[in-house]
Amino acid sequence: MLNKKNLRHLMVAAAAAFAMPAMAQQNYAQDSATIKKIYDNALTSFESYENLRYLTKQIGARLSGSPQAAAAVEWSRQVMEDMDLDRVYLQPVMVPHWVRGDKEIGRITNSKLIGTADAPICALGGSVGTGEAGLSAEVVEVKNFEELEKLGKKNVKGKIVFFNRPFDNTLVETMGAYGGAVDQRGGGPVAAAKLGAVGVLVRSMTNDFQDVPHTGNTRYADGVAKIPAAAISTNGAEQLSKLLKNDPNLKFYMRMTSETLPDVLSYNVIGEIKGTERPDEIIVVGGHLDSWDLGEGAHDDGTGCVQSIEVLRLMKDLGIKPKRTIRAVMFMNEENGLRGGLKYAEEAKSKGEKHIAAIESDAGGFTPRGFGIEGSDAQLQQVLTWKPLLAPYGLHNIGEGHGGADIGPLKGQGTVALIGFKPDSQRYFDYHHTAIDTFEQVNRREVQLGAASMASLVYLLSEYGLNGTTAKAQK
Amino acid sequence: MLNKKNLRHLMVAAAAAFAMPAMAQQNYAQDSATIKKIYDNALTSFESYENLRYLTKQIGARLSGSPQAAAAVEWSRQVMEDMDLDRVYLQPVMVPHWVRGDKEIGRITNSKLIGTADAPICALGGSVGTGEAGLSAEVVEVKNFEELEKLGKKNVKGKIVFFNRPFDNTLVETMGAYGGAVDQRGGGPVAAAKLGAVGVLVRSMTNDFQDVPHTGNTRYADGVAKIPAAAISTNGAEQLSKLLKNDPNLKFYMRMTSETLPDVLSYNVIGEIKGTERPDEIIVVGGHLDSWDLGEGAHDDGTGCVQSIEVLRLMKDLGIKPKRTIRAVMFMNEENGLRGGLKYAEEAKSKGEKHIAAIESDAGGFTPRGFGIEGSDAQLQQVLTWKPLLAPYGLHNIGEGHGGADIGPLKGQGTVALIGFKPDSQRYFDYHHTAIDTFEQVNRREVQLGAASMASLVYLLSEYGLNGTTAKAQK
Repeated sequence: MLNKKNLRHLMVAAAAAFAMPAMAQQNYAQDSATIKKIYDNALTSFESYENLRYLTKQIGARLSGSPQAAAAVEWSRQVMEDMDLDRVYLQPVMVPHWVRGDKEIGRITNSKLIGTADAPICALGGSVGTGEAGLSAEVVEVKNFEELEKLGKKNVKGKIVFFNRPFDNTLVETMGAYGGAVDQRGGGPVAAAKLGAVGVLVRSMTNDFQDVPHTGNTRYADGVAKIPAAAISTNGAEQLSKLLKNDPNLKFYMRMTSETLPDVLSYNVIGEIKGTERPDEIIVVGGHLDSWDLGEGAHDDGTGCVQSIEVLRLMKDLGIKPKRTIRAVMFMNEENGLRGGLKYAEEAKSKGEKHIAAIESDAGGFTPRGFGIEGSDAQLQQVLTWKPLLAPYGLHNIGEGHGGADIGPLKGQGTVALIGFKPDSQRYFDYHHTAIDTFEQVNRREVQLGAASMASLVYLLSEYGLNGTTAKAQK
Repeated sequence: MLNKKNLRHLMVAAAAAFAMPAMAQQNYAQDSATIKKIYDNALTSFESYENLRYLTKQIGARLSGSPQAAAAVEWSRQVMEDMDLDRVYLQPVMVPHWVRGDKEIGRITNSKLIGTADAPICALGGSVGTGEAGLSAEVVEVKNFEELEKLGKKNVKGKIVFFNRPFDNTLVETMGAYGGAVDQRGGGPVAAAKLGAVGVLVRSMTNDFQDVPHTGNTRYADGVAKIPAAAISTNGAEQLSKLLKNDPNLKFYMRMTSETLPDVLSYNVIGEIKGTERPDEIIVVGGHLDSWDLGEGAHDDGTGCVQSIEVLRLMKDLGIKPKRTIRAVMFMNEENGLRGGLKYAEEAKSKGEKHIAAIESDAGGFTPRGFGIEGSDAQLQQVLTWKPLLAPYGLHNIGEGHGGADIGPLKGQGTVALIGFKPDSQRYFDYHHTAIDTFEQVNRREVQLGAASMASLVYLLSEYGLNGTTAKAQK
């Protein structure tokens, strides 16, 4: 039936077809058929899911510098070596080596109301320890840095600063809520230490009310005392906040033996299919291989890694010979240093490589909703001409957006567009950086659909490039 | 920035505004603000989630005719009584009363290859039992009714027919895969019994590979022997199928003590806010209160019930005075009889009530994707004029579709449009009709977003009605 919706899609397609002087004529029927094949294969293959099972269950958590991170490098190298790609290689990079040490102890003490109660905490990544004896101090709660500044040294000195600004739950996309709260985690220790605080507690970065604390990186600054910093679970934060209202002189005891060891040699792991027509034009699809040391790094970012490998597998399995070069990159050290992403961009620049697009999957293995494009308006418009091919698979949400941390350093190299794969965001911060980010939380079909979505976009990019001329001509 | 997308939305809005001779002039800015208030409230209120917790954890599974179903009726009546609605009432309806009896036993026996092995089964709803001793017979596997017919009486008589057609995993929407497989569950026993089979095993209705069997209703026909019918878990089905290839004479032992008792009096539970301008025009929003007797009926359909109640709560809490009457209906007996839906439609007809739209949430409490409209093309076009108001909340998928089982019997009463709420479908059949459809599988925000989506559409329907004149004028 030729209804209005179909008609609009046809008109978009027709407009695109007439307006492609500088591009290969797009064959929508053929592209549509190829994309259908990609989805059919991805949805009936267990490869990506079983790869995820191995990475999470056999290797597990793999913080940069850990033996498990090395295992993940070797495993992903072997998986891609078995795929008959044109090239599989390691890109050496020195990474930070922070270790958590003993399981942390967090405890409310000296409370007039409840006496003593354990509170679930975990050291923030990069944090110094408390020493073997731990530290005990009164707590001062703030919601933001302005409140902290107002309190001033006299109210902060010798205390633990408790940053307790929650996620804004009214934001439909949870990434926005994270963005609005995470400054506390990154900037808390420096701001607190400047006022003489002895420790920091940060409310866990999640929409949910849980007993599990969420780790994540924090920062120190030269010339400012490095004080121990921990995340406290949201339930713990609620309890502590409630008590403090009537019991401002309670104390909090925290013990952490975390420390930073010397840097360690590690690697980005790269697999490549050479383009048949324009091998010098490179499309990256990637995720990060490292994870936090809690849980299994399933949604963050095991799924991004296995989906990126799956993109190459789909090309090989379906006999698609991409016109441009496709690289799956497992970046190392996204979580606490971004050294892999920086190294990749540095090497690309020094070799004079021409990247046309880089897609990152680092928002969890949930049902695909679309892509965020960080590029020129013309590039965005060109991707939008493909929406009729992608929307039938649930990819409605295509627009301006953030590419991703690992691919970020490529920005400005030639005309490269950075593209963030956007899955459904509702559950991501239930698991993010926690002990419960495990294989069991991942739905097989959601991961498969993500891989197929990425492969479909990579296919279109490899066929038509991304110089945006289509869109320019349309304007 | 006025980009193409904004421009198109504005043009749709403008077209709608100019083409509304028979309707109230639509105020997009005001509607947009109201919808934002609805979402903000829903996403920060724990009411719907805590209602779901009570329904699933304190009441639990609530098959028609069970004491728990009666508890759910009284609970939902009390919840709505506390909401200061214009009217809360029960609609009596006689419902079937089937009971599962003892936990079922399923066992592969007499296998040359493995000897004996338990296989997870559960009786299909409505099935007769096997008698205390159980039944043991050889198994014949088929993928569909055509295969069964070809086998004929000589190969089927005295045996258990094993329907083992899997879901088509290439379908992106899992509802389609369910629709393509569920004929085996409903029609299996009659087709098998006609050829002299003594029992039926049906592969569980799921995309996943699991040990948990999925129940669901089956049917018998007058004049055809009623033979026991069970679902077997997908892992069990895979094992049985594999064994049968090399071991066709193995036997299967099944024991079920299920039985159908006399009908029981139960109720639809209805809460109502009277319309201020057109109280005679009714908008229904509903889910079904009964569930299967396994698990807790969380996604099926506890979420639909608490979301429907939440629609009324949002109206009250935000001080929205709907122009048309809004009814939240908890239908009884969707799972094994549809008596509540039939009764509701029958009463509506006999009272001469004028329903303009009915929305059902019975596809799980997952992230909203859109609505399926079962109505005239003009009605669909009118709803599509609201897409610019709904798409910012992720409701992209608005189009023709299936309304829902409980509201289905209203079809043809006046101009009523039946509208199915469409959440993400990937995980639904992981839990559907099983022991693992529990509260823990539900994400708070996903349920909240669903309630807000439904409330937003109900609000627009209550403001503007749904006679489709907008769209007609646009054509």
